[in-house]
Amino acid sequence: MVYGYGNRIAFIDLTKGKVKIRKPKESILKEYIGGKGLGARLLYDMLPPKIDPLSPSNILIFAVGPLTGTGAPASARGVIVTKSPATWTFNDSNGGGFFTSYMKLAGYDALVFLGRAEKLSYVYIDHDGKIHIRDATHISGYGVYATEDTLKDEVGDKDAKVASIGPAGENLVKIAGVVVDKHHIHARGGSGAVMGSKNLKAVVVSADKNNPRYELAYPDEFNEFNRRYIKEKIFSEEYSWAKDGGTPVIVQWSNEAGLFPTKNFQDGVFDGWEDISAEILKSYRTSKAACYRCTIACRNLVKIRHEKFGEVFIDGPEYETIAMVGGSTGLGDFKAIVSLNALLDDMGMDSISAGNIIGYVMELYEKGYISKDDLGGLEAKWGDPDVEHELVKMIAYRRGFGDIMAEGVKGIASYIGGDSYKFAIEVKGLEYPAYDPRGSYSMALAYATSDRGACHLRAWSIVEEAFGDKDPYIVEGKAEIVIRLQDLNAIKWSMVWCDFLAINYEDMSTYLRLATGWDLKPEELRYRGEKIWNLIRLFNLREGFTRRDDYAPYRILHEPLKSGPAKDKVIGVDNFNKMLDEYYRLRGWNKDGVPLKKTLRRLRLSKDYKRVWHPLN
Amino acid sequence: MVYGYGNRIAFIDLTKGKVKIRKPKESILKEYIGGKGLGARLLYDMLPPKIDPLSPSNILIFAVGPLTGTGAPASARGVIVTKSPATWTFNDSNGGGFFTSYMKLAGYDALVFLGRAEKLSYVYIDHDGKIHIRDATHISGYGVYATEDTLKDEVGDKDAKVASIGPAGENLVKIAGVVVDKHHIHARGGSGAVMGSKNLKAVVVSADKNNPRYELAYPDEFNEFNRRYIKEKIFSEEYSWAKDGGTPVIVQWSNEAGLFPTKNFQDGVFDGWEDISAEILKSYRTSKAACYRCTIACRNLVKIRHEKFGEVFIDGPEYETIAMVGGSTGLGDFKAIVSLNALLDDMGMDSISAGNIIGYVMELYEKGYISKDDLGGLEAKWGDPDVEHELVKMIAYRRGFGDIMAEGVKGIASYIGGDSYKFAIEVKGLEYPAYDPRGSYSMALAYATSDRGACHLRAWSIVEEAFGDKDPYIVEGKAEIVIRLQDLNAIKWSMVWCDFLAINYEDMSTYLRLATGWDLKPEELRYRGEKIWNLIRLFNLREGFTRRDDYAPYRILHEPLKSGPAKDKVIGVDNFNKMLDEYYRLRGWNKDGVPLKKTLRRLRLSKDYKRVWHPLN
Repeated sequence: MVYGYGNRIAFIDLTKGKVKIRKPKESILKEYIGGKGLGARLLYDMLPPKIDPLSPSNILIFAVGPLTGTGAPASARGVIVTKSPATWTFNDSNGGGFFTSYMKLAGYDALVFLGRAEKLSYVYIDHDGKIHIRDATHISGYGVYATEDTLKDEVGDKDAKVASIGPAGENLVKIAGVVVDKHHIHARGGSGAVMGSKNLKAVVVSADKNNPRYELAYPDEFNEFNRRYIKEKIFSEEYSWAKDGGTPVIVQWSNEAGLFPTKNFQDGVFDGWEDISAEILKSYRTSKAACYRCTIACRNLVKIRHEKFGEVFIDGPEYETIAMVGGSTGLGDFKAIVSLNALLDDMGMDSISAGNIIGYVMELYEKGYISKDDLGGLEAKWGDPDVEHELVKMIAYRRGFGDIMAEGVKGIASYIGGDSYKFAIEVKGLEYPAYDPRGSYSMALAYATSDRGACHLRAWSIVEEAFGDKDPYIVEGKAEIVIRLQDLNAIKWSMVWCDFLAINYEDMSTYLRLATGWDLKPEELRYRGEKIWNLIRLFNLREGFTRRDDYAPYRILHEPLKSGPAKDKVIGVDNFNKMLDEYYRLRGWNKDGVPLKKTLRRLRLSKDYKRVWHPLN
Repeated sequence: MVYGYGNRIAFIDLTKGKVKIRKPKESILKEYIGGKGLGARLLYDMLPPKIDPLSPSNILIFAVGPLTGTGAPASARGVIVTKSPATWTFNDSNGGGFFTSYMKLAGYDALVFLGRAEKLSYVYIDHDGKIHIRDATHISGYGVYATEDTLKDEVGDKDAKVASIGPAGENLVKIAGVVVDKHHIHARGGSGAVMGSKNLKAVVVSADKNNPRYELAYPDEFNEFNRRYIKEKIFSEEYSWAKDGGTPVIVQWSNEAGLFPTKNFQDGVFDGWEDISAEILKSYRTSKAACYRCTIACRNLVKIRHEKFGEVFIDGPEYETIAMVGGSTGLGDFKAIVSLNALLDDMGMDSISAGNIIGYVMELYEKGYISKDDLGGLEAKWGDPDVEHELVKMIAYRRGFGDIMAEGVKGIASYIGGDSYKFAIEVKGLEYPAYDPRGSYSMALAYATSDRGACHLRAWSIVEEAFGDKDPYIVEGKAEIVIRLQDLNAIKWSMVWCDFLAINYEDMSTYLRLATGWDLKPEELRYRGEKIWNLIRLFNLREGFTRRDDYAPYRILHEPLKSGPAKDKVIGVDNFNKMLDEYYRLRGWNKDGVPLKKTLRRLRLSKDYKRVWHPLN
């Protein structure tokens, strides 16, 4: 038995309807920790390259880590790993709430779903930790909210936690996520579509908070250290932003830095951003809230009554939703954004990609690439909340042009043709999130080199740049920041911590030692973060991704920002290549982005470089 | 107007329900000719890399050439080009019969289908050449036979020609083909699944044989030359095999060479091959037949009455079907093979891949990787025709384990895991056809370097090796043969000729001059073949395919054949790499299989090397 772990991985074969429980090797856990790292190792070993991510040959992994659910701050976190149908790369997607903590309480380090159920099904982990595959055809087409309520009733446990997909996942929409606890979504990269392709509507877990099915190595010292850490760090000034507005405070920061994604990244400042800022949110807030045992408590419970869309009560919205569903579509109505957020949660869809797609379609409409006719009579004008509501539903149900939109902006550009790709703001098929790199150059590199396409969570380098003290308009020295944060986050999401915890390697090392008994030095943790990052690079290389796929969108490279603090700023191809060259060099990769032999030796990944499943090996 | 062409490409947008007719540029036609070449150029220009082949972002192209339907021998041929859902590479799939000739008569050089119809539809080209998109929901789930009959009735033209998909295509089975004239199938690479993903059940063409919508440059000289060519070549001894048994004569050749795929390529000689040979076929043949105006007339009309499966009357079977549905599954019952052939045609499925998959599943069953339970009670024993019938239907309807089988042998291996990939006989996800390279080494190279995965039609190099006079068990000099044939076939399928026509560049040049008026020298044709081959290589590289994807299956490299003339022969990694190195060198590609700059310059493809749609360009 390894402390800190449930010591059980469940392989749930939906084609056969059978479950096998396996004990993970300690050597694997110690090297890949859990969450993202464990998921990456499983995905690398179990999948041959170039299989269809929406076929039963793909696998879907829910993984937690040795810290998940322990009461350490910001540890109510889990990861969903799969081959992404949006990007065809590796994909890990994190989520908070309560579900993953309960999975850990139930004694599972990972659930691995294989094959495809013959009809729509859900998986139930009962109080004894036993796994059941059950019929879900009666809730086919249900939104996430009704799905959760129905299944909790059905298993007879009001305290059960549910991860489920909405209509978007069932309809294989490429931006479908997996929603937990109604308002937390493993959003990016289409893991909801993979779940849908497996005919898996939901996973429900019952657990006993007082009887966790895992043990910590040094429970008393763990609790003592944790108490001190929470007191000194979490209750310090450092986390006041979370207790205050939460992530929506960034609306102000981004506009002041001139990098707020406005009308599909046409501009960096949104007229009237004050109306969708944290201050406005606070006026609708009923209370603060937290994920399972989290002491940061960044959540905002918000209630609005919209004249058209009625009353909505949600946990949210986050900055990303406000910026992408709001700014990027030209929508400055806070209540409409909240109402769209609720709809997106219920449909089970990523709000970043949804907002980006809608903004793109509005620009396509404005410029005459698509007509009212093409949109089934909709006039896709900037900032019209009715249109946005309709477009969200068209995407979720793949109705009319929504069938094209459901493929993401790259899929739309493929269908439209011509030079429409020039303002499709994506990398590797994943839509840009809400920081325009023309106002903080390093973000272009962070998006380009992210393991799952344009993601801001692999390296939120802006915190040291436009939101910090480094010059945001030069490229020198930026690769180092991006790499440092990518490695750090790779290990954070393996333990699994929340993004919002600003923890260093020293403290992670202590937490890990007290949970597992392993004495891993801070540098050994950093090394593992780097190793996991490189293993995933090997996965993506094997899938056929290389330097040409580590790009920035045309607009970001070639079109200067029109106004605001970053007016006239544009990254340019030379600058971009300079950052990328430096990044590869510092990573120990060659000019094509392939890890050098000595890098793989140093990371003990040499034998992984050979393609698993390759007949020539 | 360009002679030899209809001078019309129809872009049929199934999402919008609209059709645009465009006139192709003469410069493009002269460079890429038609068929495969024209399709490759369109696909390269219209698709960004790494889009989902089963999404509405993919396109599906039906293309014919300047010789199609002209009455030149073996010219009743057309090509379907798309991004393959089986391999994710470029895919062109040829077919004969009457459909494509009628498409040419109707004046279309290509039909390009975009998007996805909201409900199942079919496209009708009426006598005036007008294109209609019509509802097909009433024939949802129909087999190919009933689809053809129903639609001919519906358009009120008994002479209309139909290309359609069966249940396999509708269910997005990765080995689904597009069937024309009931028994001719554009079989390989899953173009039927792409058609299914577009909700396109069928394309129906009415045409007037006496009023072709294209003109030849020198019709009298064309007819004169054609008469002479047919008399001297087609009616010579060279084509006696076609007039005799057709392709089934190869059953004997393959067994005598010891390379007949027996029980999933476990052996190279099939006990009782005489029972499934051309001689047996002749005893059931009712008559010979031909595709539209073809003077080779290789077709065999065969009628059998099977005690279990009833009476069947088909145009077939070909060698590949006999070998893969028969030998590779251990089935030595000719009548059962014919009955399976008819079922596969009606379901709309590639018989090569189907036979390979069934053989693989039988070996998995024999070795205990899968159980009777996993197969829903089926005992998948070698050579059981009942089991094969059932498995074909399970695949077509994705029932039970058929859902996994529908992904092909690579998809099955991904699901099964472990070392099951060692006897999954495929390249790039496309199943091997019926020549075991251990009995004719060059075929391993031909399969590995084929542009669409394991295909024998890109270079049937065996004709100079095991079926010719070159030593089949050495690797020296084989790359040259494979390259020579690949270039030749690339241009053949652009004009479009049938595989069975052994025509040289000189005669192709004359035919092309008399049809179009262009005076292209034999070397200029060869150059275009090479250019098309390289353009497709660039497409596949852009999609992420490289040297690691140009492989041979483990069994072929590592396991010696057990008996027969090629007993103990095995290719080995060193031998394979030697051939591949030589191939790349002779092609003017680097060690990774990427065309050198000077090669691209020579082929005037330099500007295509840059990734289309790439923001850094």
